[in-house]
Amino acid sequence: MDIKRYMDAVGREARAASRSMARADTAAKNRALEAIAAAVLREADRLLEANALDVAGARSRDLEPALIDRLTLSEKGVAGMSEGLLQIASLPDPVGEISDMKFRPSGIQVGRMRVPLGVIGIIYEARPNVTADAAGLCLKSGNAAILRGGSEALHCNQAIAALVHEGLRLAGLPETAVQVISTTDRAAVGELVTMKDYVDVIVPRGGKGLIERISQEATIPVIKHLHGVCHVYIDDDADLDKALKIAVNAKTQRYGTCNTMETLLVASGVAERILPRLCAIYADKGVELRGDAAARQMVQGMKEATEDDWGTEYLAPILSIRVVRDLDEAMDHIDAYGSRHTDAIVTEDYSRARRFLREVDSSSVMVNASTRFADGFEYGLGAEIGISTDKIHARGPVGLEGLTSQKYIVLGDGQIRT
Amino acid sequence: MDIKRYMDAVGREARAASRSMARADTAAKNRALEAIAAAVLREADRLLEANALDVAGARSRDLEPALIDRLTLSEKGVAGMSEGLLQIASLPDPVGEISDMKFRPSGIQVGRMRVPLGVIGIIYEARPNVTADAAGLCLKSGNAAILRGGSEALHCNQAIAALVHEGLRLAGLPETAVQVISTTDRAAVGELVTMKDYVDVIVPRGGKGLIERISQEATIPVIKHLHGVCHVYIDDDADLDKALKIAVNAKTQRYGTCNTMETLLVASGVAERILPRLCAIYADKGVELRGDAAARQMVQGMKEATEDDWGTEYLAPILSIRVVRDLDEAMDHIDAYGSRHTDAIVTEDYSRARRFLREVDSSSVMVNASTRFADGFEYGLGAEIGISTDKIHARGPVGLEGLTSQKYIVLGDGQIRT
Repeated sequence: MDIKRYMDAVGREARAASRSMARADTAAKNRALEAIAAAVLREADRLLEANALDVAGARSRDLEPALIDRLTLSEKGVAGMSEGLLQIASLPDPVGEISDMKFRPSGIQVGRMRVPLGVIGIIYEARPNVTADAAGLCLKSGNAAILRGGSEALHCNQAIAALVHEGLRLAGLPETAVQVISTTDRAAVGELVTMKDYVDVIVPRGGKGLIERISQEATIPVIKHLHGVCHVYIDDDADLDKALKIAVNAKTQRYGTCNTMETLLVASGVAERILPRLCAIYADKGVELRGDAAARQMVQGMKEATEDDWGTEYLAPILSIRVVRDLDEAMDHIDAYGSRHTDAIVTEDYSRARRFLREVDSSSVMVNASTRFADGFEYGLGAEIGISTDKIHARGPVGLEGLTSQKYIVLGDGQIRT
Repeated sequence: MDIKRYMDAVGREARAASRSMARADTAAKNRALEAIAAAVLREADRLLEANALDVAGARSRDLEPALIDRLTLSEKGVAGMSEGLLQIASLPDPVGEISDMKFRPSGIQVGRMRVPLGVIGIIYEARPNVTADAAGLCLKSGNAAILRGGSEALHCNQAIAALVHEGLRLAGLPETAVQVISTTDRAAVGELVTMKDYVDVIVPRGGKGLIERISQEATIPVIKHLHGVCHVYIDDDADLDKALKIAVNAKTQRYGTCNTMETLLVASGVAERILPRLCAIYADKGVELRGDAAARQMVQGMKEATEDDWGTEYLAPILSIRVVRDLDEAMDHIDAYGSRHTDAIVTEDYSRARRFLREVDSSSVMVNASTRFADGFEYGLGAEIGISTDKIHARGPVGLEGLTSQKYIVLGDGQIRT
C-alpha cells in the first residue's frame, strides 16, 4: 500500500467534504448524530465482538495491562458512547453564530460569524470511545475529521466508523466527512500531520509521549494537551473546612486524571493547624506523602520530596507537599514547577484571591474550588476534545467552540471608503 | 558575534519581561505609550537623520525604488508614528477583562479572563513605522516583543528602539519588554522563529515572499497575512448605483493595498447594463482591464484575461473581469481563485446576501460595502498588527485582542466534585 497516495486521497476527500459540512444545517447534523447514537446501541453486540478481537490481539502481544484496560469496551461503555452523541446533538450549533454587530462611523455594520476550522486530524491511543466522541464533536462543529486511532483498537474503530458513515448517509451528509484511517502503518501519521493543504489543525489525544512526538513532527497547528501538574495553595486566610474538603477532593476523587492535584502548597501561618488533620485523611486513603523539611516536621512518616517530585505528574496516590512563606512564594513555585494546567487557591482574602486569579498563568485558575472541576462538562461546554495547555487559539477545555474560528462580516448600504 | 548565544539571551530576557508586562497595570502601560509618543516628536530630527543614513545606504546599494519609498520617513510619517502610539494608549486595555461568568449546577461560577500571549516575535521589512506600531500594540496587550526589522532600516529602528526604552523606563516597566534585534545577520531570524521556549507566536509583516519563507521555517505558531485576491460580485438584483460606487471604490481608492479588489464578477443578467458604464470610469482612471470572452463582447478594448489573471494580486491599476451565470458560479470562482482575504456581494436580494455571508470562506465577507473597509481602524479595533488569512487563533484584522488569549477562571465557595 502506497501510504503517501492513500493519505493524499483521504486528505482530498476530507477537504471536499468540509465544504459540505460547513454549509450543513443544524437539523441535518443533529439527525446524523442521533442516527449514529441509535446505530451504536443497535449494534452494541457487534461493537463488543470487534472490541473482543482487539483485546485478544493485545493480550497475545503481551501489551501492558493499563493499555488493555483502556482498550476494553464494556456494555456500559457502548451506552455511554451513544449518550455522548445525543448530548452533542443537544448542544447549540456554534456555526453561523453572529456576534458583536456594531455600527461604525462610516455607516457599515461590523461583527463576527463563527465558522468551522475545516479539516481536523485527530490522533489518539487505544480508547475506542474517542472515535465516536471525536467524530461527533467535529460533525456538530461543521468540520470534516480524519481519525487515526491506536492500531490496537483497529477492529472496533472500523466498526464504529461504519456506523458513523451510516448516520451521515441517512442525514444526507457526505460519508467522507469522517474518515477513519484503515492502515496501522505509522507513516500515515507522518503524512497526516504535514498535509498543510488538506488539514487545518491536529488534535493529539493521549499520553505525554504521543503528544510531544506529534508536536515535534507536525507542520500543521496542533491543539495540544500536555500534562497536568496541578496545585492547591492553602492561604493563611483560608477557611480551613473548605481547605480540607478541597485538598482531599482535588487529590483523591480520582488519581489518574490530568486535573488531579499533584502538589499541595500550604502557607506557613496555617500549616500546623491543617497539615496533621489533612495528612491523616490522606493516610487513611492510602496516599503516599512526600514533603519538604517543614512539612515533615509537622507530620510523622512523610517521605522527603526531591526536586524531581515538584515537577512530576504522578497520576497515582502520591502527593508532594510544601510549606511556603506566603502567596508570592506559592505563585513562584507554581510558575517554576507547574504545567500551566489548573491551579487553585483556598482563601477568604479578597486581594490575594484577585492576585492569584490574575497572576497565575494556567489554563484554569480557581478560588475555593477543587481542581477536579477543570473539565468541559463541568464548565458547561458539553463534551471536550481535550484540554489545551497552549495559549494560541484555544486554552483550557476545548469544546465545539474551540473547533471553530470567527470571520468578520460587514453589512453596508452602498458604503465606500473615503 | 555568536548569533545563537545572542538570540538565546534576547529570548530569555523577553520571557522574563513578559511576566512583568502581564502584571503591569493599565496606567503604567499608557504612561509608557504616551512617553514614547512624546519622545518621538521631541526627537523627530534625530529619527529623520537616522532614516536619511538608511536611505543613503539603500541608494548606494542600488535597491529598488519601491523599497526606498517604503523606507523613507517624512516629517508627517514621524507625526503619524506618535499619533498612532497615542491612539493605542486610548484603546481599552484587553488584559484582565472577565467575561461570561456563569453559575453551574455544581455551584461554581465559571468564565474567562483575557491574558497576554507572552512573547511575540515580529519580523518585517524596511518600514520604520512598524517598529513603533508593533512595539505599541505588544506593550498595550501586555506582551513582550522581539522586533526584527529589515536590515535597510537598522539606524532608524535603533533610534526608535532607544525612545521606546526611554518610555518603558519612565513608566517603571522593563526595557527588555521591547527588544529590537541589533544584528542584520539573517541567522537571527532562523533562531527567532524556532525558539519555542521563549517565543509564543511569530507575526511576519511584509510581502508574500517573506511570509512564505517565515512560515516554512517556523516551528512556533505564525499569525500570517498572505496575499489579498479580493472580489466584488455584482448580483442580478444589485442596486446598480451602489454597485457602481462600490466597484469603483474597491479598485481605485488605493491600488497597492491587500483589500483592493483584483477581480470583478458580474452576473450575466446585469452585465450589459453595468459593465460599459463601469469600464468607462475605470478607463478614465487609467485602469487596465482584462476580461473573459463575455466581458470583452460588452466592452471594447479589453485585454483577454488568462487563467493566471484570476489568481493574481496585481497591487496595481489592473483589474480582471468575469461574467458569471449566478451566485453559485460567483462563489465557485471565489473558492477556486480567491485568497480568503475579503470578498463582497452587491445585491438587494435577502436570501442571496445571506448565502454569500455564510458560504464564502474569507476572513471578511461583505454585503453592499467596499472591500477597502477590511482594516483594523475601520472595524473599530484600533491599530492592527496584520490581517490574518488563517483560521487558527485570529482571522481578519488582528488588533490588541488577537495578541491575547483567554484562560478559564472558576470562583467557588468550597465546592468539590462528586
